[in-house]
Amino acid sequence: MRQIKVGLIGFGTVGSGTAKVMVEQAERLKRKTGADIILKTVADLRTETLPDHLAGVALVKDAAALIGDPEIDVVVELIGGIEPARTFILDAIGAGKHVVTANKALISQHGKEIFEAAAVRNVEVGFEASVGGGIPVIKALKEGLAANRINTIMGIMNGTANYILHRMTNEGVGFAEVLRDAQELGFAEADPTYDIDGIDTAHKLVILMSMAYGINARLDEVSIEGISAIEPIDIEFAREFGYRIKLLAISVNHGDHVEARVHPAMVPEEHMLANISGAYNGIHFNGDMVGNVLFYGLGAGQVPTGSAVVADIVDISRNILHDSINRVPPLSYRPDELRPSAITPMEKISSPHYFRIPVKDRPGVLSKISGILAAHDISIESVIQKGRDDTGVVPVVIRTYEASDAAVGAAMAEIEALDACAGTIVKIRILANELSE
Amino acid sequence: MRQIKVGLIGFGTVGSGTAKVMVEQAERLKRKTGADIILKTVADLRTETLPDHLAGVALVKDAAALIGDPEIDVVVELIGGIEPARTFILDAIGAGKHVVTANKALISQHGKEIFEAAAVRNVEVGFEASVGGGIPVIKALKEGLAANRINTIMGIMNGTANYILHRMTNEGVGFAEVLRDAQELGFAEADPTYDIDGIDTAHKLVILMSMAYGINARLDEVSIEGISAIEPIDIEFAREFGYRIKLLAISVNHGDHVEARVHPAMVPEEHMLANISGAYNGIHFNGDMVGNVLFYGLGAGQVPTGSAVVADIVDISRNILHDSINRVPPLSYRPDELRPSAITPMEKISSPHYFRIPVKDRPGVLSKISGILAAHDISIESVIQKGRDDTGVVPVVIRTYEASDAAVGAAMAEIEALDACAGTIVKIRILANELSE
Repeated sequence: MRQIKVGLIGFGTVGSGTAKVMVEQAERLKRKTGADIILKTVADLRTETLPDHLAGVALVKDAAALIGDPEIDVVVELIGGIEPARTFILDAIGAGKHVVTANKALISQHGKEIFEAAAVRNVEVGFEASVGGGIPVIKALKEGLAANRINTIMGIMNGTANYILHRMTNEGVGFAEVLRDAQELGFAEADPTYDIDGIDTAHKLVILMSMAYGINARLDEVSIEGISAIEPIDIEFAREFGYRIKLLAISVNHGDHVEARVHPAMVPEEHMLANISGAYNGIHFNGDMVGNVLFYGLGAGQVPTGSAVVADIVDISRNILHDSINRVPPLSYRPDELRPSAITPMEKISSPHYFRIPVKDRPGVLSKISGILAAHDISIESVIQKGRDDTGVVPVVIRTYEASDAAVGAAMAEIEALDACAGTIVKIRILANELSE
Repeated sequence: MRQIKVGLIGFGTVGSGTAKVMVEQAERLKRKTGADIILKTVADLRTETLPDHLAGVALVKDAAALIGDPEIDVVVELIGGIEPARTFILDAIGAGKHVVTANKALISQHGKEIFEAAAVRNVEVGFEASVGGGIPVIKALKEGLAANRINTIMGIMNGTANYILHRMTNEGVGFAEVLRDAQELGFAEADPTYDIDGIDTAHKLVILMSMAYGINARLDEVSIEGISAIEPIDIEFAREFGYRIKLLAISVNHGDHVEARVHPAMVPEEHMLANISGAYNGIHFNGDMVGNVLFYGLGAGQVPTGSAVVADIVDISRNILHDSINRVPPLSYRPDELRPSAITPMEKISSPHYFRIPVKDRPGVLSKISGILAAHDISIESVIQKGRDDTGVVPVVIRTYEASDAAVGAAMAEIEALDACAGTIVKIRILANELSE
């Protein structure tokens, strides 16, 4: 029986999960592919011995030894981060190996370089596990939805941020407290910046946009805003309006330019994305032929992510067996068909907005605020003024009709400069109607 | 540029939608595949002329002429039903053509014969559009989730039935009225039997089970129950209990035998499947590695289904271009690895149950009913007795803990034989806890 040999660099959470999936599913994969897909070597600096279920797998410290092994067909990079992951992948490609990675930071920033190197050597680069953990969303976008112009991408793509918002929503507790809990439970990293500030979500959006639109999307063009300013009171108001607050990646295809943004948004509670709870991810596309589709599942975790990594290994193995390397281009469109991206400036993007403005409870404040909004052509849909804390500060909550980011930014600055304004305004975009259908 | 020529049999809803997708997306598909995928010929008995946007496409009456055309690489069958669809497909395979079909009735009942014929001639059979309309669920199951033992399949796979239940739920109107409306709006067929009786859903379940488990699943082994007995009052009680009623396909993999059933079920309202509304479909898998995943989208319709048909054409075109035919076996497992199915007898399947028992409002009735349930080892979780109509008949609503179908059937027969029982009992299974997580 034909053998495909795999070398795995990095034996952390996803690395050990991938090894587990390979070993536990080996028999099943044989029944599907007709080949023996074998984990030959693991390279990891800090691992002294491999667990018993990996008997027969070699352990080395030096990734270069693994990359240089002429028996290895596929190199799997699971150390994360930019370097040395980038060098390992480029070296593996240079050595004529196929590559599989879960590294969204790397693919979103150095994908072009990696795919070009792979094209030169005619090897494959699989990155299914870089977006949506175990959800086979990249294959779906590249192949299942091939006959569509993708109009919109919307996703909840960070399980940690979604878990925090979910618990804040269900339990009414504050951001800091839930984050601490999540860290103790191992749901959030010791340094959760990438998760809660939206950077991890932006990495994933860049990867999806590149494939969806056939562009070289760039991370530095994505507008990114995290969830740390959200308080339980905002979640409470959202609920009163019929919304749930989610950290969303949003991209809208306007043809000659595309929106690319990550920010918290109020999602109508009947929308599928409003019902993605806990650590789950949900990725929603609108295609001109297929209409709305959504893919849901665990966006992280040892074996779910391993499931996606091994799906890529199987895909590549089939291409090795059938001598059909690069049967599907890495970014869906053929490399010579990729176009530079043109990103819609955020100032031009319009959404309905939610504002929570802390004001000193004095007559005439609301009149001043609404005057400023009117001057910037921002129409108010509803106003709520409630409660009053010990300091005499009350939140004025305003829901607007669609208003551009430019108008909103200018109006907020003027309102915050008012004597009656007692602090920073919390501003959350509401999902526009045309995205909520 | 290499050309792939396609012949399309059947120019009804899905046929004309597929033609539209092929023509509108031709340029995009060229940018992705590097080939010209061309609709050469349409065969349809009742079509006199093709629409303007299909200028250059030949129209013939006789499918045999299309099948015999040596220029055509891929034959797409979209007439539905068993015959003559089966003969056309077998003839096309015999002529060495690849085949794409959306025909769930045919694939679920004659798939084995068709796949064996295709293996002999080394041609492909694509059937993505047979389940879940535009949702790329078959590719996801065969490839994206390849490294998983599939533990469970649960799906809302008939848009007509879901649309009816959704409107009954939201508007409190009766089954017959909504059905009539749906027929007038074109959402339901003139003969909606397959949709509302669960047969269409069963066809799709058989296809998914075959791929998920690597078995030759048989339609006649699936237990099928439709939605026509459900009344608004049942939906109302479900809501009080925190459930929504959905027509579900359910299959549980017990290893040496598998459950296979289609019936209405009460789904906890926070479950993703409870939130699939209108004509949408949702298909949920639990895999031993990936955990829970769900695929959501339009399960029918002209261009959504066309999107799936064309995805298959693209897949096959890539295999033609790379000379990698049957790179992925049609049922995921290699043909010599398929096993006969062993279906769990329904009598042995346990679920919590909802009963609505119409009783003459007499003292002692509840005591008799609960006595019968106890005698069959069925534990009651709650009882509601409400209202009373002009005839003195009241519904007694009982929610039970898990009870086998055998015990429930026997107990229902005894209760219906009681003098105090005023009619037929409505019995709806509640999704078991282990399926609700």
